[in-house]
Amino acid sequence: MKQEVIKKRIKAIRHQLSQKNINCLIVTEPANVTYTTAFLGDDSWAVITSRSLYLITDSRYTEQAAKECSNCKIIERTGPMAQAVAKLIKKTRPKKVAVESSTSVNAFEALKKNITGQLKTISGIIETVRSIKDSTEIAAIKKAAKIANEALDKTLKFIKPGITESELAGQLDFQLRKLASINSFDTIVAFGPNGSRPHHKPTSRVLKKNDCLLIDFGAKYKGYCSDLTRCFAVGKPTKFFNKVYDTVQRAQTAAIKMVKAGTDITKVDAAARKVIAETNLPIYGHGTGHGLGLEVHELPVVSPNSKTKLKAGQIITIEPGIYIPGKLGIRIEDDILVTKTGYKILSNNRK
Amino acid sequence: MKQEVIKKRIKAIRHQLSQKNINCLIVTEPANVTYTTAFLGDDSWAVITSRSLYLITDSRYTEQAAKECSNCKIIERTGPMAQAVAKLIKKTRPKKVAVESSTSVNAFEALKKNITGQLKTISGIIETVRSIKDSTEIAAIKKAAKIANEALDKTLKFIKPGITESELAGQLDFQLRKLASINSFDTIVAFGPNGSRPHHKPTSRVLKKNDCLLIDFGAKYKGYCSDLTRCFAVGKPTKFFNKVYDTVQRAQTAAIKMVKAGTDITKVDAAARKVIAETNLPIYGHGTGHGLGLEVHELPVVSPNSKTKLKAGQIITIEPGIYIPGKLGIRIEDDILVTKTGYKILSNNRK
Repeated sequence: MKQEVIKKRIKAIRHQLSQKNINCLIVTEPANVTYTTAFLGDDSWAVITSRSLYLITDSRYTEQAAKECSNCKIIERTGPMAQAVAKLIKKTRPKKVAVESSTSVNAFEALKKNITGQLKTISGIIETVRSIKDSTEIAAIKKAAKIANEALDKTLKFIKPGITESELAGQLDFQLRKLASINSFDTIVAFGPNGSRPHHKPTSRVLKKNDCLLIDFGAKYKGYCSDLTRCFAVGKPTKFFNKVYDTVQRAQTAAIKMVKAGTDITKVDAAARKVIAETNLPIYGHGTGHGLGLEVHELPVVSPNSKTKLKAGQIITIEPGIYIPGKLGIRIEDDILVTKTGYKILSNNRK
Repeated sequence: MKQEVIKKRIKAIRHQLSQKNINCLIVTEPANVTYTTAFLGDDSWAVITSRSLYLITDSRYTEQAAKECSNCKIIERTGPMAQAVAKLIKKTRPKKVAVESSTSVNAFEALKKNITGQLKTISGIIETVRSIKDSTEIAAIKKAAKIANEALDKTLKFIKPGITESELAGQLDFQLRKLASINSFDTIVAFGPNGSRPHHKPTSRVLKKNDCLLIDFGAKYKGYCSDLTRCFAVGKPTKFFNKVYDTVQRAQTAAIKMVKAGTDITKVDAAARKVIAETNLPIYGHGTGHGLGLEVHELPVVSPNSKTKLKAGQIITIEPGIYIPGKLGIRIEDDILVTKTGYKILSNNRK
């Protein structure tokens, strides 16, 4: 990670903090710790003051942190996290301290006990900065999508009657590993009626002739996630499969075409639902998409309840689906970069 | 999951709650939701009142919940979680409501806003009940350890100079999938000096002749985790490898031999450290072990700071290590059941 990239991020976060009259932020959310320090390990917090940037970690991660974090001071704690943070804060003497509100009530109480003075909670500051991707991040997510497509290409030959959901998921994960990547979340492989559960976990269910299947998966590259869903039919697809697949594809296309900086997110969501509503097929109960980055789900949410407009630099999934319990489920998902003039599909970059 | 098992758990939890004068608990911790409802999906909460048990989920999981949760009433929310829970609580009219303190400050504030009356936080109630495993759980963890050993056995032939850490991790994960399992956490494979980082992530580092390697991994079975670490040398081990390996093994054996219901946990921890302290090798900075169950890390913690005694039915890892930055890292980890008369190693059950 280039030092300049981190510096720019910290500057943007400090700007937000100063508007809220906060001069010290305790960062507890793992992805936010990575975003602000470049640290890719776990169980560590960051502290951003108006002058300095700290990573508080433990002996398991000290060596890794020294390698990854060139911008920040690394503190190896031996006691509880709250005590280590309180000690640091006592030394730097900030006036207004805040902690991320995604932290646990437990951790918040421990901090309050150890820190003298008021402790505020704030939410969404780093998440909002994170929702606009810089060029390093866009390139990483594009590469993560490319790896996912490559891994799927290499997995296709294993899609034969007789393979289990679990084996096929394992095969796909293995292809990701061969490409020096890892899945960005637990790979979903669902055969036949299992596809109607949007978050199905792979089982020993065997693939049958004329089954349809759904694969929802992603790759990680330099900490960044891709997230794709693809559906197939084994042998000749039935008329019903074709009808459902075609409807989902049209719904996805309609939503993608709405993507442009400045557009109300609800309009993107509604475009997909409208296509399905015009058929006699059921409308999906989940959102139409979500932001994507260091986490597989980040801001913005793409749903009927979204209250914001799309911004250039955001990367979102568009993933409408149709689920018929006992029969099948079809979902198509791609990763879309929001631009000033429209959109760029990042997940069709096979070449 | 047998209904009786869940009923017994809920009874034990209600007993704890009544001692704290609480008659409604909002369960937000995913593993606690699974423990109390048998639900294996995500993004769902449970509510335990003195009379009823509820699972609050959304449309993505309704079908799965209907299959998995025979003991509880399933509520499909459409709006925010806090509102759905508040609505339910209003209807059941409990007097003293509490939420788990591992919940986020965010979620807690949302609940407080929606629920009339006082909202307490409590911690560790379900975790403490969970730390003593019933026979179903012991069998599941034993099976998870067996699967892990089987998968490792099948992976051994791939440990050859030229393979990368990432590929070997992928191969091991694939073998787990072939056994209809999945890794219980991201598999750690570390070659040579990479082993000195206890939580190393697999890279493109290639295995060389005379390298040593460390594999830390586990399998899941019916939601339950195993967690094992094994170290190997490629070709003829060096004298130094042998010395370190032997020391770690003696440290592990010393700790395991201390395991018995009623023993101070610190004594188990100290036994391992003492063996290493008697050499000129450095003592590890992490704990000696941790509880294991639905989560890969649960109660009890096995560390110099532990304040409790071992109890029959607890399952813990014992995993001392020696780390020499720039050279190597060796850790040996097994899963141990605490019994009234001593211990049972669950992770050497290859047959």
